[in-house]
Amino acid sequence: MLQNVPGTRDFLPREMIKRQEVMDKIKTVFELYGFSPAETPAFEYVELLEGNIGEEEKLIYRFEDKGGRKLALRYDLTLPLVRMFASNRTPLPFKRYCISRVWRYDEPRVGRYREFWQCDIDTIGSMSMKADAEIISCGIEALLSLDIQNIHEFKLRLNNRKILNEIVRAARVPESKHIEAFRVIDKLDKLDENEIFGEFINRGIKKQTGERLLKMLERGAPYDVLSRIEKTIGKNKGIEELKEIIKLVEITGYEKYVEVDLSLARGLDYYTGPIFEIEVTGKKYSIAGGGRYDNLIEKISGRSIPAVGISLGIERIIDLLPKKNVSTVTEVYVLCVDDEIYDEALRISQKLRREGIKTEVDIMDRNLTNKLKYVNNQGIKKTIIVGQRDLKDGKLTIKDMESGKDEKIPINEIMTRLT
Amino acid sequence: MLQNVPGTRDFLPREMIKRQEVMDKIKTVFELYGFSPAETPAFEYVELLEGNIGEEEKLIYRFEDKGGRKLALRYDLTLPLVRMFASNRTPLPFKRYCISRVWRYDEPRVGRYREFWQCDIDTIGSMSMKADAEIISCGIEALLSLDIQNIHEFKLRLNNRKILNEIVRAARVPESKHIEAFRVIDKLDKLDENEIFGEFINRGIKKQTGERLLKMLERGAPYDVLSRIEKTIGKNKGIEELKEIIKLVEITGYEKYVEVDLSLARGLDYYTGPIFEIEVTGKKYSIAGGGRYDNLIEKISGRSIPAVGISLGIERIIDLLPKKNVSTVTEVYVLCVDDEIYDEALRISQKLRREGIKTEVDIMDRNLTNKLKYVNNQGIKKTIIVGQRDLKDGKLTIKDMESGKDEKIPINEIMTRLT
Repeated sequence: MLQNVPGTRDFLPREMIKRQEVMDKIKTVFELYGFSPAETPAFEYVELLEGNIGEEEKLIYRFEDKGGRKLALRYDLTLPLVRMFASNRTPLPFKRYCISRVWRYDEPRVGRYREFWQCDIDTIGSMSMKADAEIISCGIEALLSLDIQNIHEFKLRLNNRKILNEIVRAARVPESKHIEAFRVIDKLDKLDENEIFGEFINRGIKKQTGERLLKMLERGAPYDVLSRIEKTIGKNKGIEELKEIIKLVEITGYEKYVEVDLSLARGLDYYTGPIFEIEVTGKKYSIAGGGRYDNLIEKISGRSIPAVGISLGIERIIDLLPKKNVSTVTEVYVLCVDDEIYDEALRISQKLRREGIKTEVDIMDRNLTNKLKYVNNQGIKKTIIVGQRDLKDGKLTIKDMESGKDEKIPINEIMTRLT
Repeated sequence: MLQNVPGTRDFLPREMIKRQEVMDKIKTVFELYGFSPAETPAFEYVELLEGNIGEEEKLIYRFEDKGGRKLALRYDLTLPLVRMFASNRTPLPFKRYCISRVWRYDEPRVGRYREFWQCDIDTIGSMSMKADAEIISCGIEALLSLDIQNIHEFKLRLNNRKILNEIVRAARVPESKHIEAFRVIDKLDKLDENEIFGEFINRGIKKQTGERLLKMLERGAPYDVLSRIEKTIGKNKGIEELKEIIKLVEITGYEKYVEVDLSLARGLDYYTGPIFEIEVTGKKYSIAGGGRYDNLIEKISGRSIPAVGISLGIERIIDLLPKKNVSTVTEVYVLCVDDEIYDEALRISQKLRREGIKTEVDIMDRNLTNKLKYVNNQGIKKTIIVGQRDLKDGKLTIKDMESGKDEKIPINEIMTRLT
């Protein structure tokens, strides 16, 4: 009865405070770019999810409700977004963000959970590369707001399904095997050479075809890679689109985080244009991914509407960031030396709260030693000591818990000292 | 495929912005009182929920996962809290808040959903009435931060299970029928007289007993009601506890929102001491409720630890508050008159964003009329018009969308104008 369900986690304050801080910072950047919050239910009819995810469909967290409905906890935030969008009238572009839970019935292991948070922005309704560039700049800026660049170098790998389509054609992969080829490409950095060719052959793609394909999948400075691949496959809409995106990202100043990587394929079937992943250099794993999906809304609703989005891997991002050694949001603890003057301590606490200072006062009827032990265990930075004699002199003691220094000051100066 | 599951809702930005604002304000007050965030999974083993909720147990949203585990989407935030607390070591008092989803398999109808949000604070580890008083003051302050008092008068009804226990004894309700009596009392304001006595008789309580009981269930100014009931039932721990709570709430200045109502029983079985509900006067429904539950943690974990909490009915609270007529968080729209100078418009947008102004710029390649239509539809307050000729003069036009007034100002003054 005391266990939680496998693959799920509890977040005590010492973790939750950090998680919330990360989410708040990301949210702030999303809103600066004019993305607004929207939410969908935790579960959907399972049909919404089926046939849209690709090979990961086996991870759908299915269940049946008491009414016999076949439901699924949402696998991601994109399919519910599309359903919500399709069943409502909203002005275009529809720019929304969502930071919320998703569920996957995966084998629980280190860093892999059945319940975790996703963090998405999507722009629905725009065909223009301006939308893609905006999503990319906003995604990069969200990471920068967390100072991730000071901990790990990161790069946004940029590609385009339209270029990939032409590359697989140029490599003479049979038309019917294009998606299969993308799936192998998607795994390149996880497999060694033998495994890669094994995958090609398993999926009905010949070794020489695979070799021709791999040779074209260059990575590097955007304009260099794009002009070389143009020489190989000729003029291509996808190349033009990426040039346009890069030009716009240059204006926001974030082009230094962008590389073109023709070996980026992305697992999901529904991408149609630019695709991107943000990778922590050296760590070989991505902390964000997204792309353009111009056909998904039509497939689900019959209404043809383009869309593009990015999902930040917030769980991994939180893991990358330094831990905080606090177990509480409390900034000041009002320590009452003697219960007879508790009313006064409570009055002072209320004053601090009114000034916006997060304040605790004893509610345990504890002695002085235990009060101080609590303050130290929780990592509270400042204590205000309220004593009988001091009060008569109109004074209070402020103690800085880190330095151990304390200072008696007049009561009416306490606010200016703390705010 | 386009429908959402019965009893669940989508929140488009026009609703979500308001919801988020309400939750943020409440969260701010919770943190001012030193409550820290904590989270638990969406689902639990069903055994955690069974036997602790009372008559509403039938509403548990049960399901089975692929591994055959019998699970339930959480019914409330309290039982998961207790499980989390019991399976972790944390300093006491453990003061946490949680604003998150819960699920009940109820018949969906107006205002009643299968998925909705709860908003709780709980203090674990304190026997002192200081903890109860703090929870009450914090709950009231959270409502005041939303200016609810300017829309609807509200009152916190306060009672104590220890008084109720004595009252049912004084009314000579058989010992075995005490819980049944509380359940009838809990429904008093929803039933007429006939129905009430019908309920008493159905639950094996005689009419005269019921009459004796009802006569004692006074409501009014705290000290008046408490001193009168003391005359009827004699000295009682519960009465002393309420007096102590009221004295402390007076210090915070919120006593004017408090009445003692001996007819308050609360549905849940696990309350052991003070109980309370915040009621919108005239509306006959509660927007918050809580109380002390000193035995629940022991029942679940074997460890005897007292606790007290309040849950704000955030869905009802949101319904009470006025609607907002905006569909976006965006504060400023940068309108580029001519696509040739789009780069400049984007550059200006980035500058605004860097100053913390939520900014949109066209990403639809639309004409002027359609851009303005979008700005108006979304309810964006200000537009900055970027035109070729103005740019040459080093100027921009700021248009206030509400008044319709516009003004040409030098580019370098734009920030000071907007921030």
